[in-house]
Amino acid sequence: MDANPILAEAVRGNWVENRHRGAFVVVDASGKVIASSGDIERPVFPRSAIKSMQALAIFDRHATDRFNHTSEELALACASHHGEDEHVGNVAHFLDRMGLSVNDLECGAHMPTNAKARQALRAAGASPSALHNNCSGKHAGMLSVALAMGVPASGYVEREHDVQKAVRAAVEYVIGEDLTEDRCGTDGCAIPTWAAPLSAWASGFARMATGQGLDGEHARGAQALFDAATGHPHLVAGTGHLDTLVMEAFKGRVMQKGGAEGVQCGAIRDKGWGYALKCDDGNMVASHAMVAALLLKFADPDANQKAVLDQFARQPIKNVRGTVVGEMRAVGI
Amino acid sequence: MDANPILAEAVRGNWVENRHRGAFVVVDASGKVIASSGDIERPVFPRSAIKSMQALAIFDRHATDRFNHTSEELALACASHHGEDEHVGNVAHFLDRMGLSVNDLECGAHMPTNAKARQALRAAGASPSALHNNCSGKHAGMLSVALAMGVPASGYVEREHDVQKAVRAAVEYVIGEDLTEDRCGTDGCAIPTWAAPLSAWASGFARMATGQGLDGEHARGAQALFDAATGHPHLVAGTGHLDTLVMEAFKGRVMQKGGAEGVQCGAIRDKGWGYALKCDDGNMVASHAMVAALLLKFADPDANQKAVLDQFARQPIKNVRGTVVGEMRAVGI
Repeated sequence: MDANPILAEAVRGNWVENRHRGAFVVVDASGKVIASSGDIERPVFPRSAIKSMQALAIFDRHATDRFNHTSEELALACASHHGEDEHVGNVAHFLDRMGLSVNDLECGAHMPTNAKARQALRAAGASPSALHNNCSGKHAGMLSVALAMGVPASGYVEREHDVQKAVRAAVEYVIGEDLTEDRCGTDGCAIPTWAAPLSAWASGFARMATGQGLDGEHARGAQALFDAATGHPHLVAGTGHLDTLVMEAFKGRVMQKGGAEGVQCGAIRDKGWGYALKCDDGNMVASHAMVAALLLKFADPDANQKAVLDQFARQPIKNVRGTVVGEMRAVGI
Repeated sequence: MDANPILAEAVRGNWVENRHRGAFVVVDASGKVIASSGDIERPVFPRSAIKSMQALAIFDRHATDRFNHTSEELALACASHHGEDEHVGNVAHFLDRMGLSVNDLECGAHMPTNAKARQALRAAGASPSALHNNCSGKHAGMLSVALAMGVPASGYVEREHDVQKAVRAAVEYVIGEDLTEDRCGTDGCAIPTWAAPLSAWASGFARMATGQGLDGEHARGAQALFDAATGHPHLVAGTGHLDTLVMEAFKGRVMQKGGAEGVQCGAIRDKGWGYALKCDDGNMVASHAMVAALLLKFADPDANQKAVLDQFARQPIKNVRGTVVGEMRAVGI
């Protein structure tokens, strides 16, 4: 197997310290490759980058008809949020509207991703709850699917539960490929994650962006989810995060979502292109540099959008005293 | 440039999620390669892995004659300590014995590496000082060099300061190669770091382990430093860390030291072999798996030593709820 190309490098002083390899692909909804580098047929775990695809089960199972989900709720279903007050409050409200509570979440608890939210929690002497888990909005969405299906919610994170079967079917429908047990793992928040070729994830995003290749119901669901995510960028990630800043700057033109271990997926909506990217070694900072370079090259950014992307395509590396001693930078995209 | 081989991989469920490339080399003091993989002539920043080499300046400049440094002080000069009470107290004492204090350190302050020490500091409402900086022992050693040389200590971290010139000369002497300005950066603790071929770092460790190729004074200094580090493994790193556990288990047979961004160096002292290893992408967990595999293969571990190394050669990956969902494991060593 040939090595993927180096797509980011960390420089210290005048010498390259680290090299980050990866693959990326930009496709249209027919699957035509606009641009790519590296092995785009290697199956990769998409992790949280495809929460919007997983959330299509909400539409599949008519949970939207039952609960009339708000755009905030749909955005949170697509989110890896940072546990800020706005996130925690909205997820609590999302659950409450369905007659549920934090006790129904099976994602586990972790400290908020946002540093100020962590400090506030510590200062209050409080422990994080499952609401602070970056995936709590996705889990609220999955509970909505359980209720709409009329199945017991308990155990909804398990691979053989009807909810996860519905989620799997929705993802398979959008990417046009089977998800198979020989490449399956458990995600950080306890649900299954399935590896599929990078090209399949990108094609799925192109289909969601255009509706092309999807039936009317899925096309409407995909548009509602992308509109919700791009309309509420802060709910999808949090203060200062690439996903939030990019979606704010592109004002609906770009849907962008990161996943753990160096995955980045999204769509340049006005062009009808989907993209997917994986940093081979899982480094998130490097994957941010890579996806910023991808959007600089393919998303026709204006000056403001370019300024946002430039911050991530070349990120300063500081030492303990705060002096800039190097940079993480994208190369070869 | 060919890609280095994959030396560690992270598996989730039944599928490889991340791949970590790197190079390693094991050499004797004559420079004869016992084993290697990847590009061992590529210059790499050694970072903290060569603190014991940098500490040779203490002997070069006869600081040991002046201050009669204890083995604890020499161990701390080689250390990336975790800011536990024992570390902070010993570094404070080290400085005090020279008529200096925390105010003379120019490494900057950061929170302790050790989680319990961090929690204790937070619970006390206190901020970390430069004593908590993992490099504070090395900096105390550099201040000792300044005093022994009779030069003003202020600015001792700068590349052109006499102290850094002495440190550079000591390292060049041991590795038998010039350190050059065209591959120089600033380390996390503000001192210069110089890239040199991986093979040179390994050879330097073999020379320090054997004294072969060194004059009597450097040979004695090297032995004193390696004896100090292997005699006080907890001072060199901290509770639960690979360097500490490996040196405890090998009871003087192995000197092992990690450096930031995936560097691992050391010596199998009874065989007279030095080794050096760099994970291309800087991942520390992967570099721990790699160096554990290296020592399993080349350091003839007994059952207890093997048990310690096995913990790092295959490390469980857990999700938010604490369930094991995969592992980081060494491959190809």
